[in-house]
Parts: sequence; C-alpha cells; structure tokens
Amino acid sequence: MTPERSMRITGTTRCYPILGHPIAQVRTVPAINAYFAAQEIDAVMVPMEIPPGGIEALLALMRSWSNCGGASVTVPHKQAAFRACDRLTDRARLVGAVNIIRREPDGSLVGDMTDGLAFVEAMGRNGIAVSGRTLLVAGAAGGAGSAIAQALCGAGAARLCLVDPSRERLGLLAGRLAADFPGCRIDEGWPDDARVDVAVNASPVGMRRDDPLPIDLDRLSPGAAVCDVITKPVMTPLLVEAARRGHPIQDGNEMADVQLPFQMRHLGLWADEALAPEGDPT
Amino acid sequence: MTPERSMRITGTTRCYPILGHPIAQVRTVPAINAYFAAQEIDAVMVPMEIPPGGIEALLALMRSWSNCGGASVTVPHKQAAFRACDRLTDRARLVGAVNIIRREPDGSLVGDMTDGLAFVEAMGRNGIAVSGRTLLVAGAAGGAGSAIAQALCGAGAARLCLVDPSRERLGLLAGRLAADFPGCRIDEGWPDDARVDVAVNASPVGMRRDDPLPIDLDRLSPGAAVCDVITKPVMTPLLVEAARRGHPIQDGNEMADVQLPFQMRHLGLWADEALAPEGDPT
Repeated sequence: MTPERSMRITGTTRCYPILGHPIAQVRTVPAINAYFAAQEIDAVMVPMEIPPGGIEALLALMRSWSNCGGASVTVPHKQAAFRACDRLTDRARLVGAVNIIRREPDGSLVGDMTDGLAFVEAMGRNGIAVSGRTLLVAGAAGGAGSAIAQALCGAGAARLCLVDPSRERLGLLAGRLAADFPGCRIDEGWPDDARVDVAVNASPVGMRRDDPLPIDLDRLSPGAAVCDVITKPVMTPLLVEAARRGHPIQDGNEMADVQLPFQMRHLGLWADEALAPEGDPT
Repeated sequence: MTPERSMRITGTTRCYPILGHPIAQVRTVPAINAYFAAQEIDAVMVPMEIPPGGIEALLALMRSWSNCGGASVTVPHKQAAFRACDRLTDRARLVGAVNIIRREPDGSLVGDMTDGLAFVEAMGRNGIAVSGRTLLVAGAAGGAGSAIAQALCGAGAARLCLVDPSRERLGLLAGRLAADFPGCRIDEGWPDDARVDVAVNASPVGMRRDDPLPIDLDRLSPGAAVCDVITKPVMTPLLVEAARRGHPIQDGNEMADVQLPFQMRHLGLWADEALAPEGDPT
C-alpha cells in the first residue's frame, strides 16, 4: 500500500471553490483534493455556501480573484453560473446551465455542463446499453434532464422519449435535439407503439416520502434499466420498486462519483491522455 | 515522532480565507492548517488574491458566505477590512486597521488587530524587555507602527518616542496613547535628554536597496535592541548594521511567526486556556 500524498496549502495554492446552497452534502470535495495531491497539482477545492442572492456577486468577483482557477457549481446555482460565463461549450448552451467553470488567466469564465457525460459514463460502468435502444427521460426539461437527454442522443440512442410537466420547455428541447441528432427519433411523451428499454428519472419527484413514482414501471420492457439522479434519498421509492421487480438500477450517487475526470478535463487539469482536452468553446 | 494529522476538506468544512494582494508570499497558511488538523477543527485557511478594487465586494459577500468563519487580512487590505467591520476591538479602532476578522453566525464581521500583540510576544521570546524602558517607533503613524506603539504602552513602556513623516497623524496617535496610557510618557520625535533602549522600524524604509537607514543607531543605548517589521528582505540594511555593531536584533518574520495564537483567539478557535477569549468588542 503506498501512502496517500497529503495536501499542503500555501500562499501559491490555486483555489477551486465548489458553489452551492446548501453545501454540506457535496460528496466530490475529498476525491478532487486527493486527485490534486496525487498529481502534485498545487490546488485546493473548498466548499463555499453562497445563497442565491449572493451568487452573482461571487461570480463577478471570480474575475478578479487571481489565484482562483475555476469553480464547480451545484444546486441551485447552475443557471446563474451559466449567465455569468463569457464562453460556453455547446453542451452547456443547450442545457442553459453549467456545473464547472474554468477561470482563464485574463479573468474570463468558461462554462461546461458535464452531468450528461457523467450519467452516460456511469451507465457504461453498469453495463446499461444506450446505442440502438429506446430510452425515456422524466423531467427532461430541467437542467440535469436536458444534459442527460443530450448525452443519450450523443451516445447513439435510437429513440428518446422526453417527459416533463413544462410542455413549452419540452418542445424547445425536443426541437433542438432533433436538429442536432438527426439519427435519433425524438418523441414528446411516452411511446404508444413500443416499450421503453431504459427509463431515467431526472425530475425531483421522489425526494419527498409521499411523492408518486415519476415513471410507470408497467410500461417498461422486461429487464429494462431504471435510473435516478436523486441523491437524497439514494434509494428513491422508484428504485426500490424497480429493484423489487428485478430491474437493473442506477442511483444518483453513481453519476456524481464519475464526474471528476470530466470536470478536471474542462479545468485543464486532467492528466490522462485518454481524455484529451477538447477544442475551445465559443 | 507522532505522525502529523492530515487535513481533510469536505462539504462541512469552514473556510477562512487569507486576503492579500499579492498573496503568494504569505507564510502563515501551512502553520494555521496544521493547527486546525492537530486540534481536529473542521476548517481550512486558503489564500485569496483579491486586488484593491475587489476587496469591498468580497468583504460584503463574506456576510452571506455562510460556511466562512472569518478571514485573515494582510497588505494592502487592512484599512478596507477595518471599514467593512460591524464591530471592532479597541486595538483595531486605535490603529484604523484590522488583520483578523471573525464572521458571526448572523453574518456580521468583528475585526481585531493583533500585529502589536504579536510584536511584543516576539520581543518577549527574544528577551527584549519593555517594562520601564525608553522605546522608539519609526513609522509610528502607519498601521503596523500604531499597533506596535499601542502594544508597547500596554506592556509597560516608561517612555515611548514616536517618529513619522506625517506630523498630523503622529499628533493624533500621540494624543490617543497619552489618554489611554497615562503611566507612559509619550514624545513626538527623538528624545533630547535620553538614549533609546529599544528602537523599532515600522516604516517601509529598508525595502529598497538604496533606502537610508530609518533609525540613527548612534542615538541608542549600548546594547539597545533593534527591531524591524519588514519581511522583504528579512535582513534589512538597518538590521545588518545593527548586528554589525553588536546590537540584539529582531526581524519581521519573528512577528509574523507568533501571530497564530492571537488570531485563533479572536476567531474563537484557540484551545489553550492561557489565552482565554476576551470580552466582546463593541
């Protein structure tokens, strides 16, 4: 067993705050600091609990905070962070939200949204196939749902069914995805002529004990995978019932736990060449 | 040898930024984080390099930054931090500057100025007596100089001679010290009728290679101590010449290195009962 390298913060250390409200529940901070230490990157991630009323001021201040290298962004600041960025990846622009910001040396802020990539990565680790299949996303018009819908299209879904109480936002998303991914059939609502192979809950339904199930398990294929993005509770009533019926499941922590490489890549701090830096966003 | 406890930052960790511009040169960050780890305090100090134009915004933001427990403040922000505080210790109010801020749970900011206390503590460690002696402070009207002058009075100086190019600020300081410390004789300028037992340079004279000496070594008692607050260079021309003449000396790092207990006490994080919390400032 090799000893873990320990963190050492000095005056030269670059800061990467993680911005949220509340913040105590975030899981990624120790893993990211362990990554910095292992890679001998003189950087630290620290939790910053900033209320919605203060986030614009903080994001403006980041431009002049010269030893800040960027920020991780979580609920409820992903949309405010999107508006504060000078440049955005296409992924972030489609979703209208960012979960990671790189601060350039000139102080400008470049946003990305890696939730969808991480979700599909977690599916791959769980052996849940996307390519050629019919998938459904409930809560598709929200931040996480839009990111996941887009990533599923990018991963080769044959047919994607989008469900959301906001019909207007759902229509806008469906139109954008259809334009960007002509090889994928985009539906609004449940399919009448097919069973669903993979169902994803990206809505908040399931956080409260008396919530109804956000997905009708009777309309899934036998052996269909059921995924949830909720982390409190990790085992939502949806996942409990799906598991009881024998469906493979994926919980919200699994998406959170594979974010690190995607966020580090956007920050320019990813060491593994298998995930090389992408072209500059615009 | 017991292993050092290592730092672990999670979502529950409280942040204590150290605010300065530049910030890379600060020496206290590793010592304070080691103190937090040793005391099992779930807190971290991180460097924040904020330019003068951004400091007001950051201090305002600290009120809503709910997992921030306070801030250490260094050059050039000590006066701006003073103006931002809701409450101040008498020490800070006399000096017009703060070097440590405690953030209360309601978001209010309470400032203190511990430079003088740390300076006198370092003198004690060096065996430089204050009580009953004649001392001189050059650059007395500045932030560090005022703090040191006040602390020397508090430590029982018999006579304190204040030197500063700003006659107006010097007069104000002398009047306040005379009112607060009736047992100490306060002079403006060098004494005509006595030799100086301890001479302190609290001015920036000595930071540049071609600066003149800020203190006339010929007017000191034999064996008088010579102290400097400058840290760049640590061995100023004044200290070099004083040491050459056989005077005991104290350099700027010695003051910086004993700040920790005083700053932790103000933050309510000092474990040693020998430095019990003081009464609330007003």
